[in-house]
This record gives sequence, structure tokens and C-alpha cells, in this order.
Amino acid sequence: MTESKNALEKHYEWKGKIEVVSRVKLDGRESLSLAYTPGVADACKQIEKDPESGFDLTRRWNMVAVITDGTAVLGLGDIGPRASMPVMEGKCALFKEFGGVDAFPICIDSKDPDEIVRTVKLISYSFGGVNLEDISAPRCFEIEKRLRECCDIPIFHDDQHGTAVVAGAALINACKLTGRKLSKLKAVFSGAGAAACAVAEFFEGLGVADIIICNSKGIITEDGMKDEHRKALAARTNPRGIKGGLKDALVGADVFIGLSVANLVTKEDIKTMAKAPIVFAMANPVPEIAPEDALEAGASVVGTGRSDYYNQINNVLAFPGIFKGALSVRATDITPAMKRAAAQAIADFTGDITKERIIPGAFEQGLGEAVAKAVAEAAIEDGVAKAVTK
Amino acid sequence: MTESKNALEKHYEWKGKIEVVSRVKLDGRESLSLAYTPGVADACKQIEKDPESGFDLTRRWNMVAVITDGTAVLGLGDIGPRASMPVMEGKCALFKEFGGVDAFPICIDSKDPDEIVRTVKLISYSFGGVNLEDISAPRCFEIEKRLRECCDIPIFHDDQHGTAVVAGAALINACKLTGRKLSKLKAVFSGAGAAACAVAEFFEGLGVADIIICNSKGIITEDGMKDEHRKALAARTNPRGIKGGLKDALVGADVFIGLSVANLVTKEDIKTMAKAPIVFAMANPVPEIAPEDALEAGASVVGTGRSDYYNQINNVLAFPGIFKGALSVRATDITPAMKRAAAQAIADFTGDITKERIIPGAFEQGLGEAVAKAVAEAAIEDGVAKAVTK
Repeated sequence: MTESKNALEKHYEWKGKIEVVSRVKLDGRESLSLAYTPGVADACKQIEKDPESGFDLTRRWNMVAVITDGTAVLGLGDIGPRASMPVMEGKCALFKEFGGVDAFPICIDSKDPDEIVRTVKLISYSFGGVNLEDISAPRCFEIEKRLRECCDIPIFHDDQHGTAVVAGAALINACKLTGRKLSKLKAVFSGAGAAACAVAEFFEGLGVADIIICNSKGIITEDGMKDEHRKALAARTNPRGIKGGLKDALVGADVFIGLSVANLVTKEDIKTMAKAPIVFAMANPVPEIAPEDALEAGASVVGTGRSDYYNQINNVLAFPGIFKGALSVRATDITPAMKRAAAQAIADFTGDITKERIIPGAFEQGLGEAVAKAVAEAAIEDGVAKAVTK
Repeated sequence: MTESKNALEKHYEWKGKIEVVSRVKLDGRESLSLAYTPGVADACKQIEKDPESGFDLTRRWNMVAVITDGTAVLGLGDIGPRASMPVMEGKCALFKEFGGVDAFPICIDSKDPDEIVRTVKLISYSFGGVNLEDISAPRCFEIEKRLRECCDIPIFHDDQHGTAVVAGAALINACKLTGRKLSKLKAVFSGAGAAACAVAEFFEGLGVADIIICNSKGIITEDGMKDEHRKALAARTNPRGIKGGLKDALVGADVFIGLSVANLVTKEDIKTMAKAPIVFAMANPVPEIAPEDALEAGASVVGTGRSDYYNQINNVLAFPGIFKGALSVRATDITPAMKRAAAQAIADFTGDITKERIIPGAFEQGLGEAVAKAVAEAAIEDGVAKAVTK
């Protein structure tokens, strides 16, 4: 209660968590005539001749749009574009503080995917990348897909892929710690929202072959899903054709990934899993099972979404470095290989792995740079880097 | 040539003239939990309950969108949205340096007024005001009008109204200097573009009753104009029904306002005007008549658009203070009375008027504040201020 009041008071005190500053001192006629008329015309003419030079002559090279429609904000749901702004500003502050990336919040007053795609496309020349944020499923799938097709700058829905990359990093190290192979894992997901689907797809990309996804009605099936994105995912998963619900799926599983709701999983459920299972219970603020309970029931390693437990699966480990890296080579996309490179970089950065440290903490110096370097290299290798000499 | 090369090099060196910074130090779990999750949720919920509180809880209260479609950039014309970005960034730098106002450049990749209006409307909840920039006529008239109707934040096309306010300030002081009354003036305009029309309308608002506007074909008439905006202006002007061109219109006129092309007016033309006329020859970079020639031909006072002559009619005297004032009281519009208050404030700020100083210089301390104060008061008086207690 006090903390909560404190945060609101702090927001009144801050009067905005970001600010636009001038990088040029305009203190006399000379500086004005260089930065503005008449000198600025030469920069304009150069970009007119060579549009790519805009990435050198303006801030575009380092500028990310943080875009939302306010439909799935934190755990608050559809609170609308205006009410989402404190989160978007916070995200922009994180971009700068953790990645040195400029980011600007844009909330769009429409829920229509056509309008959202068109709006972002029309303003995209002001930016070097787009971070989609807190857009509800299944609209977020379509919006991201269409924007990736029509824009030549990276489009990245952090709620999906940021979570996926960090969970992937945690999984890589948890496997190392417990002597498991990714390709041999049986992984069970609780939750079939955008984040859960993205994590599942990312795990597929890491080589995990046996994935089962459950929603509140049980194991998802192709027929049970309405949007194409999840129909396809349901068709690819559950290779053993298990029927039933989460409890059925968990029997013998190596990994539990929770992106659903509080207190859904019991100690007994954990005990039915394979020996010393990996448990990432990421429901916020209350996990699917308390870490203490999971460990008591035999889990070898536990991760959550909370900062007051070990192994916080926190997007901030990924997105600042991912964008920093993508922007540094003028990547036109953030490809699966770039995301895997980010996950591996986070995993490697962890150093000595213990059950209490399978991923780094949010405030460890050098992580953003390490992720950026790996992502930039992967972009070059993938052929999506337009400025490899930078 | 060297200067020009210098400006381009400077732009490569700057790598962007603006930057987004975090106003919050994110150096540990506590600050992160206040500025981001979970604390930020309280600011979101507050705005959901009371949307106006967004102006206190985020940077919206001080944030202006600098919006262009790149169709009328400086003297370069339709160079497109990407190539316009150096100008827009420069404008944002001016907003901050001269008014303490945060501004962010958005270039829109469309020339369709419907799309431009829709795009700006859809992203307007991220901003406290919109500065339209370098949008060609007549589209700029329609776009501004429609945005003023559908947005509840101030919409201001600076090329029109910024120029009008500063020219108005210069006119007020030029009249004082030469002992003329605004209501008795005969004013002749060369140019019927967006800026010229806005200056003419602004002069009407200041009480100037006898205005003649000429374009390259001569004195404009209702039949000769294609868009409604200029048809109406043509119908209201030229009260004496003069026929012919600029030379005919100038005979006996007190004021010449040039917003057209270089070297259009001769000393002989000036000599046909009333005794000791006022000459604002604002074509850039070469005025309609050189100030030396105008003075030699009998002009009492001369203004231009150039920084290397006395009396530069420079928008930067107006727009930072106008937005600062409008934002300070959460104005929903920038009304004619607010613009007149800005012009009067600039005129008053000048202090001792001489023929070489009818308006202040761009770098004089305190001008932005003086303009802001006058604009805020006018907004309150006009009933468009939503936060009068600030």
C-alpha cells in the first residue's frame, strides 16, 4: 500500500520519465545556421539522394518507437492508449538506461489491426526500429507479421520475443546445470497467450522437440484454436498425442513453463514430472507455484517473473541489447537466429551457473553490450545487416 | 560552399540533433519497481480513471509532435518524409533550446490529407501539442483545420502562424515607429502561399482593413483561387477593387509584405508607395528587394528573413514561447487571441524601438518566457485552458 502510493507520488514528482534533449548547443547565429537553416538543407539533400544516409545524418540510427494500443497492459488488461503511457515511458527509460538506445512512446488510439499497421508504417521513417508492447493476442501476431512484411526496419513484439529470449537463455543454462539435452526435453506450457506461444516457438528453434501447450481448457489442439498462428502451433506440438489437461501433460515432463495464472500447480503435480525438473513459473505477481514449494517437491531449478526471487526471467536482460545490436548494423529485421544469439549471449554471460543463478541479474554491467555484439554478428550472418562496416 | 560542406559534416558528426533521455535513474530493484513494474501500474490506473491526469503523470504535458509529410521543406520543396528529418530534428532542438519544450519529429509517409489527419489523430494521445511543419498548400489548410476539430490538444502550423505572429509583432512596432495606425494601413502582399495567407489573416485580426494579395499572376480574386481557404481570403481582401498586378497594388501602400521570390520589387516600386513605407521582404535566401535598396528608395524600416540583416522576421521568436504557454495551462487550442497576445508580447519585449530594432533578436534571454506568459493568460481568457491553476 505504501509502496504503491509511493510509486504514484513519484510519477507526479517526475512529471514524465523521459525527456527529449538537444544534442546541439544553439547559442548563436553560427550554430543555428549549421543545425537549422540554411545549413540543414545539405543534410536534407543528401538523404533525398541516398535515403540510407538518414541513418547517419539524423538520430534515426538509434531511435526505437515503443508502440502500444493499450489493450494488454501489464496485468491490467485493456486500459486504453492514454493509461498505457506510464508503462511505455518506463520502457523507453529502460531502453536508454540498459542499452543506450533512444526510445519514444507512441500510443495508438485504435484497436483495428489495419489502422495500427498503417499508422506504424506511415511513421516508420522517423525510427530505426519498432518495439511493439502490450498489444493483445491474437491481434499482436497479425500486427507484427504484417509490419515485418511492409517495413524495412526491425519490428519486435517484446512481450513475445523478449520473454522468449530470456526464457531460452534460462533454459539453456538450466539444461547445462541438470545435464539435459535441449533436443531430448519434454516441455509443458501452462498458458497459450502471446508470450507462451512465442516461448514455445523459440524453444522449437532451440531444438526442443516435445512441447505440450495447455490453456485453461486443457491441452490445445488445432481445432480448438481460432487464429491461424495458434492453429499452426497446436498442429506442430504435442507429438505424443497426450489427451487431457495440464496435470496429464506434466507426467514425466522435464520442464514446466508457466505464463498463466497464480497457484495453478501443486507440489503433487511437480512430483509427477521427471526427476529434478526445471520449473519456470512466470505468472505475475503470483507464480503458478511458489518457488519454495517447487523446490520442496523436487525441482532442480526454479525461475519466476519476480525480482524478489532468484532467476528472474526479466525481458530487460534482452530487449535493450537486441535493439542495440540490430541498430548497430542497420538490421532490417530481427530474425530467429538473432534471437537465439541473444539467448546464447545471455546464457554465456551468466558465468558460473548455480541453481540460484541460471541467468544474470538485471543490473550487471556489460550484458547489453554482450547481447548487442552477438545479435549484430547474427544479423550480418543472416544477411539482414545493411551497414556491416559500422 | 565551405559553410555548406561544414553543415553536412557537422550532421555526420552529430549523428542526430536530438536524443531521448531517461529522467529517472534506474540503478537498482527499488527504482525499477517504482518507475516500471509493479509500481507503474498505479500511474496507469490513475490515468484510466482520470485521463487528464496523464498530463501530470507522464511527459505529455510538455511534449510536442513536430509533424511533416516532407512536401514543402524549406526552399527545397517536396523532398519526401525521410529527407525532411534533419529539419524536423532541428526544429525539435529549437523547441528545447528556446522554450524548454520537449519535441519529437514524426515524418509521415503519405501525402493524402485523410491519412495524415487520421495518423496524427491516432497518435495524439502521446503528445500535448502538434506543430505541423513544411506541409504544402492547400493541403496544409485542410489538415490543420480538421486536426483542430478532432484533437483536444493545440494544433499549430508554424509555417503559417509562427510567421504571422512574428510579422505581426514587427508590424506593431513598425507602426509605432512611423506613427501609423494598424486600422488605417494599406498593406500589399507579394505571395499567396500558406505563410502569406496566414500573415494576411493575422493582420486582419490586428485590425488592418485594406489588404491586397498578389501572386505571380497579379492581384488574387475569388474566381482565380482554387481552394476554399484562399477563395474566402480573396473575397475579403482588396476592398478598393484595384485591378492589375503587384505594381498597381503598391501605389500608395503603407506596407509591403514579401513572401514570394527574389528581386521582384524595384526601387521605383517602393517610390510609388506611401511616404516612408514599411517593407518586409521575406523571400529566402534572397529578399524581394535588398534592404539597402528599399531604404534608399525611402522605406522607413525594413525586415527580412535573413539573420545577417537587422530585423529578422524569425519564427523562433514565437513558436517555442507559444507552445510553452499553451502547454503550461493545458490549452486545447491556440486561438487567434493567443497568437495576437504572442505578437504583442514580442513587440513589447523589444524595448526601445529603432528602425534597426523593431523586433528582438533570436538569442535574447527571457523572450520565450514572456511570450509563454502572455499566451497562457490569453488561453485562460479565451476559455481553452484546462489547467489554469498550474
